[in-house]
Amino acid sequence: MKTGCSDDHAETAARSLLSADLRGVDSHGVARLSGYVRLWDVNRVNARPEIKIIHETPSTAVVDGDSGLGLVVAPFAMRVAIEKARLAGTGWVSVQNSNHFGIAGHHAMMALEDDMIGIAMTNASPLVAPTFSTDKMLGTNPICVAVPAGNEPAFVADLATTTAANGKLEILQRLSKETPTGWVQDKDGQGSTDPGILKKGGALLPLGGDREHGSHKGYALGAVVDIFSALLSGANYAPWVPPFPAYVPLPAQNPGKGIGHFFGAMRIDAFRPAGEFKQHMDHWIRGFRSCKPIPGQNRILIPGDPEREMETERKLNGIPLLDAVIDDLRETGNRFGVTL
Amino acid sequence: MKTGCSDDHAETAARSLLSADLRGVDSHGVARLSGYVRLWDVNRVNARPEIKIIHETPSTAVVDGDSGLGLVVAPFAMRVAIEKARLAGTGWVSVQNSNHFGIAGHHAMMALEDDMIGIAMTNASPLVAPTFSTDKMLGTNPICVAVPAGNEPAFVADLATTTAANGKLEILQRLSKETPTGWVQDKDGQGSTDPGILKKGGALLPLGGDREHGSHKGYALGAVVDIFSALLSGANYAPWVPPFPAYVPLPAQNPGKGIGHFFGAMRIDAFRPAGEFKQHMDHWIRGFRSCKPIPGQNRILIPGDPEREMETERKLNGIPLLDAVIDDLRETGNRFGVTL
Repeated sequence: MKTGCSDDHAETAARSLLSADLRGVDSHGVARLSGYVRLWDVNRVNARPEIKIIHETPSTAVVDGDSGLGLVVAPFAMRVAIEKARLAGTGWVSVQNSNHFGIAGHHAMMALEDDMIGIAMTNASPLVAPTFSTDKMLGTNPICVAVPAGNEPAFVADLATTTAANGKLEILQRLSKETPTGWVQDKDGQGSTDPGILKKGGALLPLGGDREHGSHKGYALGAVVDIFSALLSGANYAPWVPPFPAYVPLPAQNPGKGIGHFFGAMRIDAFRPAGEFKQHMDHWIRGFRSCKPIPGQNRILIPGDPEREMETERKLNGIPLLDAVIDDLRETGNRFGVTL
Repeated sequence: MKTGCSDDHAETAARSLLSADLRGVDSHGVARLSGYVRLWDVNRVNARPEIKIIHETPSTAVVDGDSGLGLVVAPFAMRVAIEKARLAGTGWVSVQNSNHFGIAGHHAMMALEDDMIGIAMTNASPLVAPTFSTDKMLGTNPICVAVPAGNEPAFVADLATTTAANGKLEILQRLSKETPTGWVQDKDGQGSTDPGILKKGGALLPLGGDREHGSHKGYALGAVVDIFSALLSGANYAPWVPPFPAYVPLPAQNPGKGIGHFFGAMRIDAFRPAGEFKQHMDHWIRGFRSCKPIPGQNRILIPGDPEREMETERKLNGIPLLDAVIDDLRETGNRFGVTL
């Protein structure tokens, strides 16, 4: 609000950050607040965006985020997708001129209460090398698919299209630990286990790690996210996506505007009665829960289980914050005359 | 035709099988013909299906394949998706009561000539264990996304959601070679390099291989394919998908009908002018082609390159067939009085 955001936008953004912290995705929670403020400092985030639809058909729209926080542009676009789905059965919205949108799951899950499947994806700062290359061409480009169930909790698959997300590297660096193989490569494209290798010309690897283990599939999935999010909307893509840290210079080339997202909503009863579908989803989920675990494991997880269980735990016991995050929040607060 | 297929259906099916052979996906080409015939022998394939839409909205439909060959049901459903997209911007079709549909790419690519993005996926015989389990719960559940470009050839990502497809194991068995790590596990869930392990209670692994390398992501993607293909349509799902080999007994439980597919078509100009989009796709593709290769590699591939180059080569020089495949075709021909 102190940067000029409307009350409504500030609340929407705060909800998104808190949702990440509650779900255990600490890298996308309040720890990011000062980063967003720094983007506002350099005029890359517009605190009072006029977010609008610039093109539409019965089941599609393109949204211009007017350089707003992705945290508020994304819910706007997801609502458009949901409204389209009400009338046309499905709604698909590609977004240009936006910024980092937080966790994909928060947006995709907006569709659940209307008995719709929700989909959210976004491109991001180039950190990932395509198979066989040393150049960083794609972001960690996450995909989230949220599916309503009946008595069972919803199925929520929320995944970066890389072997590991960047946040995991930061944690390992802090602990002075090595990464497993298949997560990163060095500047010459050789496998590495150094979590700090990105600062030395290295790159994150697509899901699969190397060609023999299917990295060409992770690369293809990350590419699809880039195409849906930015090529369909008119946002920047590939290595020309503006980086999140405000101190990193912008790419010399701008084939589009800001960063891009893509959202989808599919009304269940555009295919079959929602009650019937949810009964089968329960049966599906219970089938997987009752699978035989391998020795050393005691259960099979359904996508969404870890985040939901973390949310329950943190709603009860609170969200632990690192001292560095608290200091950073305090400093940001002091600057604007807000005390923690 | 000798099983009773109409000329039209026989031609559609033959085109699909030939397309797989031309594109180098030999496991899904004419080598499968006798397998389809065996399914017809046991009344699991209906040679004269009445394929029809059983539910629809402006942008969605559910198609009942009437136990027809997936090779003919899939093009029917993809055409419905394309027609929906013409009016509503996008079209999404979930299919029940079908059979094995060949290669996903052949169907998804139908959308390209209309300047649409084409999507095809299917569930399949359960061969894949979810992360942390020894039970085979999912098929190799492929996803194909085909995107038109301008002067560059189309982007066609066509991938099983496992580290490796089953066909690769068959090739290694024939050569008496081991698999790389991360492809398969044994009956106790321990990593294995035996390409024949599936016959000994083992399983294929989701893309990623193990938890540390992201197998939970491959598992989640395979699950999404299953949900879109079968839970939305009313087909069988998870371990209850009918197996392809006619001699394998059907699962005791039938939560749906036949196997399930899912198709999508998105009209490019439902988002932005197609010419503009294709110009940016060309720029995207050239950006990736001009990436620096790692030592030992001479170029970066765009999804679809290997299959397209194989097609060019095979159209020129013919399709090499294994003796075993020729014998099998000859035997099938003899049975029906067709000489090779």
